[in-house]
Amino acid sequence: MDPIAATNSGGDRDASTPTSTTVTLPPLTLRDVPRLTSAAATATIPNPISSQPYFNPPPTFYISPGDVSLRHAFFDLATGHPDPLVAYRRAGPRGSLAVDPARARAALVTCGGLCPGLNTVLRELVVGLHELYGVRHVFGVAAGYRGFYGADDDHVLLDPAAVDGWHKKGGTALKTTRGGFDLSKIVDGMVARGYTQVYAIGGDGTMRGAVAIFEEIKRRGLSISITGIPKTVDNDIGIIDRSFGFQTAVEIAQQAIDAAHVEAVSAVNGIGLVKLMGRSTGHIALHATLSSRDVDCCLIPEIDFHVEGKGGLFEFVYERIKEKGHAVIVVAEGSGQELIPRTDEQKREQDESGNMLFLDVGPWLKSELGRWWKREHPGELFTVKYIDPTYMIRAVPANATDNLYCTLLAHSAIHGIMAGFTGFVPGPINGNYSYIPLEDIAVAKNPVDVNDHKWAWVRSVTDQPDFLKP
Amino acid sequence: MDPIAATNSGGDRDASTPTSTTVTLPPLTLRDVPRLTSAAATATIPNPISSQPYFNPPPTFYISPGDVSLRHAFFDLATGHPDPLVAYRRAGPRGSLAVDPARARAALVTCGGLCPGLNTVLRELVVGLHELYGVRHVFGVAAGYRGFYGADDDHVLLDPAAVDGWHKKGGTALKTTRGGFDLSKIVDGMVARGYTQVYAIGGDGTMRGAVAIFEEIKRRGLSISITGIPKTVDNDIGIIDRSFGFQTAVEIAQQAIDAAHVEAVSAVNGIGLVKLMGRSTGHIALHATLSSRDVDCCLIPEIDFHVEGKGGLFEFVYERIKEKGHAVIVVAEGSGQELIPRTDEQKREQDESGNMLFLDVGPWLKSELGRWWKREHPGELFTVKYIDPTYMIRAVPANATDNLYCTLLAHSAIHGIMAGFTGFVPGPINGNYSYIPLEDIAVAKNPVDVNDHKWAWVRSVTDQPDFLKP
Amino acid sequence: MDPIAATNSGGDRDASTPTSTTVTLPPLTLRDVPRLTSAAATATIPNPISSQPYFNPPPTFYISPGDVSLRHAFFDLATGHPDPLVAYRRAGPRGSLAVDPARARAALVTCGGLCPGLNTVLRELVVGLHELYGVRHVFGVAAGYRGFYGADDDHVLLDPAAVDGWHKKGGTALKTTRGGFDLSKIVDGMVARGYTQVYAIGGDGTMRGAVAIFEEIKRRGLSISITGIPKTVDNDIGIIDRSFGFQTAVEIAQQAIDAAHVEAVSAVNGIGLVKLMGRSTGHIALHATLSSRDVDCCLIPEIDFHVEGKGGLFEFVYERIKEKGHAVIVVAEGSGQELIPRTDEQKREQDESGNMLFLDVGPWLKSELGRWWKREHPGELFTVKYIDPTYMIRAVPANATDNLYCTLLAHSAIHGIMAGFTGFVPGPINGNYSYIPLEDIAVAKNPVDVNDHKWAWVRSVTDQPDFLKP
Amino acid sequence: MDPIAATNSGGDRDASTPTSTTVTLPPLTLRDVPRLTSAAATATIPNPISSQPYFNPPPTFYISPGDVSLRHAFFDLATGHPDPLVAYRRAGPRGSLAVDPARARAALVTCGGLCPGLNTVLRELVVGLHELYGVRHVFGVAAGYRGFYGADDDHVLLDPAAVDGWHKKGGTALKTTRGGFDLSKIVDGMVARGYTQVYAIGGDGTMRGAVAIFEEIKRRGLSISITGIPKTVDNDIGIIDRSFGFQTAVEIAQQAIDAAHVEAVSAVNGIGLVKLMGRSTGHIALHATLSSRDVDCCLIPEIDFHVEGKGGLFEFVYERIKEKGHAVIVVAEGSGQELIPRTDEQKREQDESGNMLFLDVGPWLKSELGRWWKREHPGELFTVKYIDPTYMIRAVPANATDNLYCTLLAHSAIHGIMAGFTGFVPGPINGNYSYIPLEDIAVAKNPVDVNDHKWAWVRSVTDQPDFLKP
Repeated sequence: MDPIAATNSGGDRDASTPTSTTVTLPPLTLRDVPRLTSAAATATIPNPISSQPYFNPPPTFYISPGDVSLRHAFFDLATGHPDPLVAYRRAGPRGSLAVDPARARAALVTCGGLCPGLNTVLRELVVGLHELYGVRHVFGVAAGYRGFYGADDDHVLLDPAAVDGWHKKGGTALKTTRGGFDLSKIVDGMVARGYTQVYAIGGDGTMRGAVAIFEEIKRRGLSISITGIPKTVDNDIGIIDRSFGFQTAVEIAQQAIDAAHVEAVSAVNGIGLVKLMGRSTGHIALHATLSSRDVDCCLIPEIDFHVEGKGGLFEFVYERIKEKGHAVIVVAEGSGQELIPRTDEQKREQDESGNMLFLDVGPWLKSELGRWWKREHPGELFTVKYIDPTYMIRAVPANATDNLYCTLLAHSAIHGIMAGFTGFVPGPINGNYSYIPLEDIAVAKNPVDVNDHKWAWVRSVTDQPDFLKP
Repeated sequence: MDPIAATNSGGDRDASTPTSTTVTLPPLTLRDVPRLTSAAATATIPNPISSQPYFNPPPTFYISPGDVSLRHAFFDLATGHPDPLVAYRRAGPRGSLAVDPARARAALVTCGGLCPGLNTVLRELVVGLHELYGVRHVFGVAAGYRGFYGADDDHVLLDPAAVDGWHKKGGTALKTTRGGFDLSKIVDGMVARGYTQVYAIGGDGTMRGAVAIFEEIKRRGLSISITGIPKTVDNDIGIIDRSFGFQTAVEIAQQAIDAAHVEAVSAVNGIGLVKLMGRSTGHIALHATLSSRDVDCCLIPEIDFHVEGKGGLFEFVYERIKEKGHAVIVVAEGSGQELIPRTDEQKREQDESGNMLFLDVGPWLKSELGRWWKREHPGELFTVKYIDPTYMIRAVPANATDNLYCTLLAHSAIHGIMAGFTGFVPGPINGNYSYIPLEDIAVAKNPVDVNDHKWAWVRSVTDQPDFLKP
Repeated sequence: MDPIAATNSGGDRDASTPTSTTVTLPPLTLRDVPRLTSAAATATIPNPISSQPYFNPPPTFYISPGDVSLRHAFFDLATGHPDPLVAYRRAGPRGSLAVDPARARAALVTCGGLCPGLNTVLRELVVGLHELYGVRHVFGVAAGYRGFYGADDDHVLLDPAAVDGWHKKGGTALKTTRGGFDLSKIVDGMVARGYTQVYAIGGDGTMRGAVAIFEEIKRRGLSISITGIPKTVDNDIGIIDRSFGFQTAVEIAQQAIDAAHVEAVSAVNGIGLVKLMGRSTGHIALHATLSSRDVDCCLIPEIDFHVEGKGGLFEFVYERIKEKGHAVIVVAEGSGQELIPRTDEQKREQDESGNMLFLDVGPWLKSELGRWWKREHPGELFTVKYIDPTYMIRAVPANATDNLYCTLLAHSAIHGIMAGFTGFVPGPINGNYSYIPLEDIAVAKNPVDVNDHKWAWVRSVTDQPDFLKP
Repeated sequence: MDPIAATNSGGDRDASTPTSTTVTLPPLTLRDVPRLTSAAATATIPNPISSQPYFNPPPTFYISPGDVSLRHAFFDLATGHPDPLVAYRRAGPRGSLAVDPARARAALVTCGGLCPGLNTVLRELVVGLHELYGVRHVFGVAAGYRGFYGADDDHVLLDPAAVDGWHKKGGTALKTTRGGFDLSKIVDGMVARGYTQVYAIGGDGTMRGAVAIFEEIKRRGLSISITGIPKTVDNDIGIIDRSFGFQTAVEIAQQAIDAAHVEAVSAVNGIGLVKLMGRSTGHIALHATLSSRDVDCCLIPEIDFHVEGKGGLFEFVYERIKEKGHAVIVVAEGSGQELIPRTDEQKREQDESGNMLFLDVGPWLKSELGRWWKREHPGELFTVKYIDPTYMIRAVPANATDNLYCTLLAHSAIHGIMAGFTGFVPGPINGNYSYIPLEDIAVAKNPVDVNDHKWAWVRSVTDQPDFLKP
């Protein structure tokens, strides 16, 4: 029944002593990243880090070609999953460069919505290129991808003095926009301005754009490297441990939950309702709930729920109020989209990617709850306070954890580019910074797996019902 | 030369396409935790989580006996290290319990210095035992291990109402002390009060104490489980990813570094000097430095450095000031112990564990720097501002990241105890909460490995010299 | 021309030396507060502060009967305004009490919306009554005025242990409600429970209620004192320097303005729009604007403005964006009510006090601005981010300034009640805590006077146009 | 006995109705500020604020010559104090200027230690001069007064773009130093660089320096205006309501007190000891104590206290610990100077101003307390944690309240200079910004008056003994 216990060494074991068991693992597959075609042959430039006076790197200083990170660091020994094991190259400085810093011309661009840490990534790219590798031509491209074919003043030369203090500022010092992706004009623009390396920071659309640019560069036979740095406060990108800005968002979300909790406990039958970011995944809502412990119920896009009737949300809320005097609900913005009634026009409308129009679950839930209460419990005092802290969360500067993360991310990207890699994303996998093919990241989702052990275990903390229709 | 590239599939590879390589791994060894001798036979009590109305756990809800976490999630494929691979059991709720919640009597105790998150761990132990398992006899033991043989009012019955809001408070609601470890009296006290499970929260001394208690319980043939929850703001305990409170400490340390930076830039030839916690390891200093990016130089116990002369610290500081107008130094408290002159009496003095008397590096460094400057650069204005934020850091409440961590840690501990495990520590290994034998944790150190690739890569960020004697 | 210069002493003045001028002031009128009819005769109980061991009050310790505060601390010497001068009694401990602490039975009640500092006022009333005067019967009345005729569990005995730490919590530990003012039942309830002193904390409605209760008590010839502590985060109550919670609100509002500013500067033609509290007065919006200095335009209820056309708001915003690349607007919630179109139903609806239905200026302004931009500047990128931080502001704990203020307010109230005063409000007037008749406070408004010198001077800081129709 | 009651109008008064009394006040003396000798005749330049398009100032917009503020806004009617009444001119924009903005050349200088808000004052001086008056020659003078005779690069041209965001930064963007006051060289430097107006920001030494400069300018017959902006985080300057940065300091001091409180309550017989700034006055300690309410005892320079023996500090602390389990002490740095034993050398040493050497009360008190406890209560566990947050407090950015204050202060200074005033200090008096002669400010102290009613009343809050020797 317990395969580990079964193969346990020692016949007459004293149950209270730690024991050991040995098993054989499935083979491991290394998923490598592309290189500039010209790079393999030319990785002969010594890393300038080695030539710093007063610094004597130990023999193990540089990342070696064999250094890899495992994607999954857990198994079920009984079933053997996951199989096969996948690994990625570790990030970090190499002893020899494939790119001559003196000839490098780097372009940095940010796309999409704000996320804590954007400015830190930008700053560290500039500082790292300058101070570690002596790259002097580093440009910020304003207004997103469209900036590559934009006006001259969309291309700003950046140096360490120019980016001083950026890591303490929210937002992005390069203006960001959505859309404007014209592949041909973008690559033309890169060629026209002589860029040899591109750092694209943005969400899943931006990563898919980076893949397309990578393919177009290859098709044209250009010697331009591109790396993507995933920016998604929702933490909805797979493979990497988490996306930057996420922990800051969870931290600041506490303020909104605290406020909702205070409003709820200070009223007779008070309900605090907080909508948090998360269109396709509920990570922020879930982490904020577990961090706060003042939340009675957390709704995320990955779970179905019904609101009225037996076992429904409203009944639960009412019972919780009878028990404790108040209740706090956290709802991820992507939750319950199928429950919100749509007008015919809303049914027809689609966003740029052809998805159904996104409706705001917060005000809808607030109003439904009010309607239900008045109908089911007429004459009983009650109050719902609704808080939507979205813009107050995403505009803050990164906290220390995210600032450190963004710093390591930016430096990982630089080391990879200088080593001759392209078409890759830097990111931590089980705590080890690694290089992952852009094309893998562009399709990797990161839903909260509500059938996994992990969720089960998390659910044992929240102790909330599942709100499934009986 | 590159073993990965060498075994690369495909003869005529297009260098700019991701490629895959497959290798064989060394065998994996599972390092198991002890169980109560009585437990193996009796793990037949259904988990009460299953009987909650309105909640329908999926088949995969409970952790299965085969679920394990890998200790190392990275390799050097060229050398095969680390070999052998080690794994630990995953933490989480089991479908069947070995402990009857109705008969459980739990004792919680905190020892040693303060650390952000202590109160969260305590609160979650109480709430988890009550709400998940229906354990009604949960006691807080005041004043550390000595409380087990202390007065009656050192044993306080705790329930969820009593611990309401504790996770938002710094310190420990159970008074903590150092020392007072009398093994026999402690175990006598446990027996006298009928405790059946003990949760000991404390530093490495406390963990070693827990091992001794575990052995004594086994020797006496008692049916008392014990779990240790490592508390070390310095993050100096090995195997687990990090210790709770550490990230909060790094976060708050930013305020001290910010202040030192402001003082330095606002003066003519200003130097800001911040001492951060870390007797044997420099994790806080290092992470705070990488998060802040305002630090010119970070000194940790793991590195040797000299202060005067060619390539020394002071020369570096002077040059940095000439270049930028100011300098900020972060020093971990355990740094440079061998540099500070000792009186004969200080040489003779030892702490309780027989270690050499610990001297305060901060004021010494401040005064040496002043002396050096006046001697080497007489008449030149200069200012050193020294900040020691220790107590302002360790007394704050845990931030959201640490609160979440403490919550999962406490619940992991409970699930393990209820499953019949004992003599173990719960903790995240590469992100997966796991159970580790107490005896392994008690001896595992966690120094900053300054010869590892990781440090090398970190060093490429800080870009500071090594201050080694030529 | 300059009356001061004209009466200047000395004929041949050296213009660069300070000079003095003497003038005669109009008479001063003291506006006194009522006393319990029984009080005047019985103010013979020695203040227990005097009997504390190890404390030797100096002769000037207690407030004397002649101590008064001036309402206006400025004049125009040319016109003699304000005339007459008004003064109020200073607050503080008196040497002799009119109320016997041993027989006192105090009731505390909070009404209306949340405001930072509510819990501090409650805590300090409890602590002050207990520790300074030895009053042992202090009750919190839950759920607002209706609690006086509510169930028994709406009346909770409070002591210093029960209120420990309340000053660090937002909201009100006594549940608050709106409405439910039934004068006769309230006073009946006070009599039935034997309350001899009532502390009512709430907004202008609550103060008017307190006046009615005061009159009813007098009509019935009861020996119950009542004091009102004005709670209005908007700072819209007159005579007193400011209301508690206001400075905390201004402080927290910075976070919303910062977020709006970050969103604005990070977008192409970005506009940040923040709605702040203030139905009848714009104090929070104005102070937050002056504190932040990132705001381009501040709209308050006291000023008229038009949005479209020459000299209108939108034109100004557009010009500011062309100049700086972005713009930030702060709007007080009561602004522009007359500009928002109303449906017939909305025109008919009135609130409980017979005022016109209050419409939300924030979303309206956002949508009008969008409509205008698309019509006037089609094809030009632009973004508006709208932030409504109301509940995140009013639910926070009081900052240090407000905590100090609430403490002094609560202690002032107690000292006044114990001295035999009733029907009064304690509050700072030009920095001196004083007692003001409840009936004066109930009708005193505190608009931002946009025709006063002070506003003019403030306006010279903001440098924004007046948006008046030409 | 009660002079107010005695002169009460109405013979048969109903004690519970507010009443009025009228009294005659002593005469009022206006204390005026100097003007540039050339100014009186030339105040004929129209204020450029009037010529802004889209702004229509009301008739009352500008401050009139008769507008004054009262220094004292309270009286004792029984004694008539204070007598005579003193008033100062109100600050703000005047309709006519005495200074031609086109010819103005302004110099800004900061001296002495850091204080929250310094950068805000600097920024607002630059922005106000530029945007309100169109002054284009505004220079920052680095390194304090000595900068006036320093190198060319100590004089930096500043404009609104250069000072963007300064109000969100701690410290001073102009380097500050102490000393270096060479009157003749300073005024020579002003003349050499053609400065026509000087804004000096600093402590009492800086104000005395400004008086000397003012006198020297007058002596030489120069047409240079000078204004002083008092910077003292201790709030030890008189006449004005408070000094900038003070409220921020009180706010941040809460963190230190919170930490000390947490350390104290988490230990067996724990004592938290916090040293706060305040050499001659205890305002920060006192306000922080009243704000926190976690403090058991507050020691300030204005009170005498003894530590050992009957009625002494240590006995009080011990009793408090027996009662509550812990104790928190706040001590202002200037307290108890006469209690600390001095070596002969220390007795001889004097600072630059001839004062006795200042000794650090914090470590002394900590060590005395430890010695006393071990002697008086041997074998009883106890812990003292000592926190000195000085540099972490003074380096933070100003909070909203102080940012607003600094803004109004800077703009007041500018309006005054442009109106032709010189030798003055701008500052709020009872809430009204006013102009005060520099020479008055330079000698005005602001001790905590422990014999005044106000202190008595404050003391009734803290409820601590007086620690006077019996």
